Amino acid sequence: MDNHTQKESNLQSEDAFLALIDRCFPSSDRLLLGRGDDCAVVSCTDSLCVSSDLFLQDVHFRREYFSAEDFGYKALAVNISDIAAMGARPTAFALNLMIPDGVDDAYWIEFFQGMAGLAGEHDLDLVGGDLSRASCLGAAITIWGERVPGGRYLQRAQARPGDVLFIVGEVGLARLGLAQLEESLALNGNVKIQDYSFGRQNRHAQAMYPQAIQAHLRPAMHVAEACALGAMDTIRGLMDVSDGLARDLPRFLGPHLGCRITLAEQDLHPELRRFAAENLVDALEWALRGGEDYALLGAVAAGSWEVLQSAVPQVSRLGDVTPTSGIMLREERILLHGFDHFGR
Amino acid sequence: MDNHTQKESNLQSEDAFLALIDRCFPSSDRLLLGRGDDCAVVSCTDSLCVSSDLFLQDVHFRREYFSAEDFGYKALAVNISDIAAMGARPTAFALNLMIPDGVDDAYWIEFFQGMAGLAGEHDLDLVGGDLSRASCLGAAITIWGERVPGGRYLQRAQARPGDVLFIVGEVGLARLGLAQLEESLALNGNVKIQDYSFGRQNRHAQAMYPQAIQAHLRPAMHVAEACALGAMDTIRGLMDVSDGLARDLPRFLGPHLGCRITLAEQDLHPELRRFAAENLVDALEWALRGGEDYALLGAVAAGSWEVLQSAVPQVSRLGDVTPTSGIMLREERILLHGFDHFGR
Repeated sequence: MDNHTQKESNLQSEDAFLALIDRCFPSSDRLLLGRGDDCAVVSCTDSLCVSSDLFLQDVHFRREYFSAEDFGYKALAVNISDIAAMGARPTAFALNLMIPDGVDDAYWIEFFQGMAGLAGEHDLDLVGGDLSRASCLGAAITIWGERVPGGRYLQRAQARPGDVLFIVGEVGLARLGLAQLEESLALNGNVKIQDYSFGRQNRHAQAMYPQAIQAHLRPAMHVAEACALGAMDTIRGLMDVSDGLARDLPRFLGPHLGCRITLAEQDLHPELRRFAAENLVDALEWALRGGEDYALLGAVAAGSWEVLQSAVPQVSRLGDVTPTSGIMLREERILLHGFDHFGR
Repeated sequence: MDNHTQKESNLQSEDAFLALIDRCFPSSDRLLLGRGDDCAVVSCTDSLCVSSDLFLQDVHFRREYFSAEDFGYKALAVNISDIAAMGARPTAFALNLMIPDGVDDAYWIEFFQGMAGLAGEHDLDLVGGDLSRASCLGAAITIWGERVPGGRYLQRAQARPGDVLFIVGEVGLARLGLAQLEESLALNGNVKIQDYSFGRQNRHAQAMYPQAIQAHLRPAMHVAEACALGAMDTIRGLMDVSDGLARDLPRFLGPHLGCRITLAEQDLHPELRRFAAENLVDALEWALRGGEDYALLGAVAAGSWEVLQSAVPQVSRLGDVTPTSGIMLREERILLHGFDHFGR
C-alpha cells in the first residue's frame, strides 16, 4: 500500500522505515500480493472476520510505563483478541502508524520487535498500511481471521438460561497491574523513562506484583483455546472481556438474560488474592470490575460442561445463565459498570 | 466491533455517536455479521484486496478550508482510490475515528454525511471500527474490495517497452486547488471557519478556480472505469496517482523502464491552462508535479490502444513506455520528484 504520506521520521527516511518493517515482518508466501502496491491481496475461502482498533498514547497506554516493545505488543494483542473472541484464527493485519517528532530510532526498532514477536507467535502477515507523521503517537490496526475448518464464528447474545458461563484466562489481574503502575507513577511524579524499559517508578510494583503488571502491559492471548471452542458445536457464544465482566457480561448475555456468578476466590490469581487480603478488598468484586485482561467469556450447554473441561482444560467455570437480567454475586446484584482504565 | 475506548464525545454519549453512525450507514444484508460484535464477518469468493490509510488534521487536511463534509468525503475517497487502482470494486470499510475535545455535534453530523454520501454512491458497507477520544483529529480507514467477475487485480511494474501509457482523470488540477487554498489562507491569516463551509478566505479562490478547489477537497473517483480496466486482458498494470506523475510514474514503471510523455497542453483542464497562461507557468510540468488528483495511471499493449479507447472513452493518452529509465517531456528529462503537498 501507499506509504506516501510520511514526510519525516526519526529513522533517516521513509525507505529506512520500510526496510526496518521488512526486516521485522518477512513477506509471506500465503499473500497473493504483499506490501508495496496500492493494495495487498489476501486469499480467503468463503468469509473473513474483521476488527479494527486504535491504540493511542495517553488514551490506551502511557509511555511512562509502557516500553516501546510493550506498546508494539499490546497494540496488536488487543486486535488478536477480537478475532479469538469469534472462535477464529487471526491470519493477517494492516498497520497505520502515527509518528510524532522526537521519537528516536531505538524506540521504533523496539516497537517493531515487540509487535513482530507477537505476530510471529501467531503466524500473522503484515500486509501493509500507512506511515504518517502526526501530532500524537499511536497505532490503528485492522486485523482479520478465518473460522477453523468445520467451525463457526461465535457471536454474543447466543446463551440460553441454564447454560454454564466459563472464562479462559485471568480476570481482575490486569486491573491490579494498572493500579500498581498508576500508583507508582503518582508517587514518583511524571518521570519519563529514558531507556524504554521498566523505569524506577515501576520497580517496586514489578517486585510486588510481577504477573499483574505483565497482564496489563502484555496481556496473554488465548487463540488456541478460541479455535478449539470455535470447533465445538455445544458452545453458545464467545467474546473477549476487555472492559471487565461487570460491563461485558450484559453485552454477552443480551438484554433479557442475567447470571449467577459462582466463581470462587480461590479461582483468582494468587497475586490478586494476596493484594485483596492485604488491602481488605473484595477480590471477587475487584475481579468483576477489572478491565483489559482479554480473557475469553463463553457459554456452553450445561450438559456439555464436562466435555468442554476435557477438551479445553484451561476453562474456569464462572457461573450460570439465569432467565432474568442482572449479575448476582453471593445473592446480591452488582452494579453494571466496570473499571474505567483511563477515567478522568 | 468494540467501541469501548471512547470515554467522551461531543455527542452526549458513545451510544448517541453509534446511533448517528447507524442512521448514516444502514446495515447491509450482504454482511454475514454487522457492527456490534467483536468482529464483523464479511463474505468473499476467493480473494480480497485490502488497503489502509490515515487521514489526519494538519498532515492530510486542514480544517481551515476543509468542511467537515469534505473531511468525511476525502478520508474515504483516498481509500476507495486504492481499490480502484487494482482494477477492483470496493465493497466495505472499517473506520477508526480520533475524536478530540471541542469538536461539536454539528461537525460530526456533517462529517458522517460527507462520508456516507460517498459510501452510498459506491454501495459500501461500514462494518465497524473504533471510536476514541484523542489529542488530534483524524481517521484511519481500512477498505477492501474484490476483482470483477472474470477480471484480474492490476499491479504496478507490469508495463513493457512500447506500451501506451494512459490516465483516467485530471492531473495537476488538485495541486492548483491546493495552491489557491493555501494562498488564500496565507493572505487571510489563520482564520478558523466557524460554519464548516467555505469561509471567507476560500471565496476568492472558489470563484476563480472552482473545479480545481473541488478536485483537492473532493477528488473524483474512477471506480467504474477501474472495473472496466480490470476486466480487460490487454491492460498491463494500474495505479492511482496520489503523489503526482513525476513521483508515481517511476513506481509504476519499475526501475528499468522509462517513458516519453506525449500528453498535450490542450488535454489539461481549462482552469489549469488558464492559470498557467496568466502566471507564465509551464502547464505540463505543473501537471506532472501535481499531487492528490487520484487519477488512474495504466499501460496497455500498443496494438490495443484503440480498443481501450472504445471500451473506456474516459482514457487520455499520456505517453509511451521506453526501454530505459527516465521521464522525457519534449526531449528533456524531468527530475523525479513530485509536489510535497504539506511540505514544511
